[in-house]
Amino acid sequence: MDVRPLDLTSDAAQLTARLVDFPSESGTEEPLADAVEAALRALPHLAVDRYGNTVVARTRLGRSERVILAGHLDTVPIAENVPSRLDDDGILWGCGTCDMKSGVAVQLRIAATVPAPNRDLTFVFYDNEEVEAHLNGLGRLAAAHPDWLAGDFAVLLEPSDGQAEGGCQGTLRVLLRTTGERAHSARSWLGSNAIHGAAPILRRLASYEPRRPVIDGLEYREGLNAVRIEGGVAGNVIPDACTVTVNFRYAPDRTEEDALAHVRKVFADCGVAEFVVDDHAPGALPGLDHPAAAAFVAAVGGDPRPKFGWTDVARFSALGVPAVNYGPGDPQLAHKRDEHVDTARILAAEERLRAWLTS
Amino acid sequence: MDVRPLDLTSDAAQLTARLVDFPSESGTEEPLADAVEAALRALPHLAVDRYGNTVVARTRLGRSERVILAGHLDTVPIAENVPSRLDDDGILWGCGTCDMKSGVAVQLRIAATVPAPNRDLTFVFYDNEEVEAHLNGLGRLAAAHPDWLAGDFAVLLEPSDGQAEGGCQGTLRVLLRTTGERAHSARSWLGSNAIHGAAPILRRLASYEPRRPVIDGLEYREGLNAVRIEGGVAGNVIPDACTVTVNFRYAPDRTEEDALAHVRKVFADCGVAEFVVDDHAPGALPGLDHPAAAAFVAAVGGDPRPKFGWTDVARFSALGVPAVNYGPGDPQLAHKRDEHVDTARILAAEERLRAWLTS
Repeated sequence: MDVRPLDLTSDAAQLTARLVDFPSESGTEEPLADAVEAALRALPHLAVDRYGNTVVARTRLGRSERVILAGHLDTVPIAENVPSRLDDDGILWGCGTCDMKSGVAVQLRIAATVPAPNRDLTFVFYDNEEVEAHLNGLGRLAAAHPDWLAGDFAVLLEPSDGQAEGGCQGTLRVLLRTTGERAHSARSWLGSNAIHGAAPILRRLASYEPRRPVIDGLEYREGLNAVRIEGGVAGNVIPDACTVTVNFRYAPDRTEEDALAHVRKVFADCGVAEFVVDDHAPGALPGLDHPAAAAFVAAVGGDPRPKFGWTDVARFSALGVPAVNYGPGDPQLAHKRDEHVDTARILAAEERLRAWLTS
Repeated sequence: MDVRPLDLTSDAAQLTARLVDFPSESGTEEPLADAVEAALRALPHLAVDRYGNTVVARTRLGRSERVILAGHLDTVPIAENVPSRLDDDGILWGCGTCDMKSGVAVQLRIAATVPAPNRDLTFVFYDNEEVEAHLNGLGRLAAAHPDWLAGDFAVLLEPSDGQAEGGCQGTLRVLLRTTGERAHSARSWLGSNAIHGAAPILRRLASYEPRRPVIDGLEYREGLNAVRIEGGVAGNVIPDACTVTVNFRYAPDRTEEDALAHVRKVFADCGVAEFVVDDHAPGALPGLDHPAAAAFVAAVGGDPRPKFGWTDVARFSALGVPAVNYGPGDPQLAHKRDEHVDTARILAAEERLRAWLTS
C-alpha cells in the first residue's frame, strides 16, 4: 500500500491511480481520510474540518452562492483488482477507478487549483457509502453538523458517464401479508390458504401501469414490483401466512406521504391482512431551475438525465439543497471486477467543472 | 426398559401397555421385533418369517381366502410420555398408545387366540413407518418378498377411531416455475418480473373447484393447493424466478397418469415455464365390494369412511390387495405429547375382528 502524501499537482488521471492504490474498502477509510485531510490543510484558501472519517473543506470568499462538491472515499471489497493498471488506450483499471476515486480526484484537483472560484465551495469527502445506510458518513455528518453542509446546490461526483443526472427517485418497500388457517393438505377444506389469498396482490401488480412524469424537463419512470414472495409451512400443510415484498420506485414529485398513500390505495381491496413499511427513502427533485444548477448544466453540456436509482443526492435534498450526480465513470461498471475508467473523461470532467466555477 | 418376553395371554389393553413400555422409536425397533418374533414362534399354528426388523407370521389352513392384518412397530420420538400410565377412567396414556401399539396388541391377540380362523391369516409387523418412505419396512418387504404379502384383503390397524376407513387418496406434488429477467428495481422496465408471472397460477388455484366423487359408497374430497411459494433475489432486484409448490390430493378413482394429466391441464395456460413432479404416490380404491371386505365391514359395524390422507393401504393396493384402515386409536391424537387411547376401544376392536374371523 502506497501511503505517501497525496500530490495534488499531478493531473486528475494520475491522482485517480494514486487513490486506487490507496485501498479504502468501507470501514477502512481512516488512512485515506488522513491523507486527504493533510493535503487539504496544506491549501491556505481552505478551512478544513473533520468528523469521524469525513473531511470537509470550505472556501470563505463571501460569494452570493455556495456549491458543494461531494464524494465518498470508500470502495466495495477489492477483487484482485488493486493496484491499478493503465493500458495503452488510456483506460485505468482497478477497484474504485469508476466508483468513485476518479470523482474524488476531480474534487481534489478543483480544491487545489481553483483558489478563487466564482461561487463559494464546500468539498465533502465521506466514508461508508457502500454499506448500510446508518453508517453513511454523509448521513452522519448531516445529523451531527448540518451547518457544514449548508449550500445552494450540490454536485455528487458519483459515476454518471459524464452527464448531469438530476434528482433521484424515491424507494418504498412494504410487506403485504395475507393470512389463512393451517390444515393438513389431505383435508384442505378445514383450512384457508394464505398463498391463494395473495392472488389479488399479484394480479394487481401484473396489471399496474406506472407513471412517467416529466419534472424540470426530465422524464422519470416509476415502477411497482414484487421483489420477494414467501409462503409455506411444509409439503403437506395448507399455509396460514404469505408475504409479498413490494418495492415502489417513485418520481420525486411525490412526497413520502403521497407514495405511501398511493401504495395503500393500490392494494386496498386485495385482501391484505397486514401492511408493513419495511424501508422508505424519499426522492429528490432535480432542482434544475435553480440558477446555480442551470449554470452547471450549461457548463457541463449534454442533456441532463433523470436518476432512477436512489442516491445520496436525496440526503442533500432533505437538507434543502438541490443536487445532481455528475462524474466521469460509467455507472454500469461500478462494483465490477473489471471496473475501469477512461482517463480522458476524468480530465474532461475536471475541465468542465473548472469552467463552470471560473467563468 | 422392560424387555421381558411378551405375554400374549394378557388382554389387549394390558398388552398395549407392555408394548408402550418397550420403546421402539423409528430405527430402534430391533429388540421389539425380536420379542414379537419370539412370541409368534411359540405359537405352533403359525409359520414365522423375518426380513430385517419386519416379522411375518402366517396360518396355512388352505382356506379359500387370505386376509392380512398389518401394523408398524415403530413410534415417533418419545416426548417424556413413556412409561405408559393407566388412569381411573380406563384411558391409557403414552407414546404409541394410539399410533399404533394398541393396533399391534390387537394383532398379537388375534394371532395367539384364533388358531383356526375362517380365513387364512397373515400377520405383518414392520419397522420405520414414521420416517422417510424409502425406509418403510412394508415397502421394503413388498420389494424383496412380495409373495409374503399375497392375500385377498388387508386390514391396517392404524388409528381410525374404531371405524373402517376405505382406501386412501393419492398425493401429487409439483413445482410450477415461472421465469423472467433480472434488472435493478429502479429500472424495472428493463426486466421481467417472475413473481408477477405467477399471478395466473395463484388465481387458478384460488378459483379451483375440487371434486367430491363417491366411490364404493364413500365420498372422497379432492384438493388442489399451493403449499409453498418462493421468489426473489434481493430487495432491489426484479426477480427472474418464482416457484409455486402445488399439492394435489386426489380421489382413488384417478390413476397416477390421470392425476398428472389433470394438473397439467389446470395450469396449461398459466404461463408455467417449468413443470416438475416433486413427489407422487397414487391412491388406493376402498375395495369394499370384495366379499372379504364386505364381511369385514358388516362385522365391525358402523359406516365406513373414506381415508383422505395417504397411508400404507396404498402399498397393498399397488400389490393388488384391497385394504382398509381399522384401529382403536383416535387419529387426531397420533404424534401428540398427550397421546392416549381408551382401553375399552382396544378390547372392542379385538372382539370385532375375532367375530369376523370366527363367524
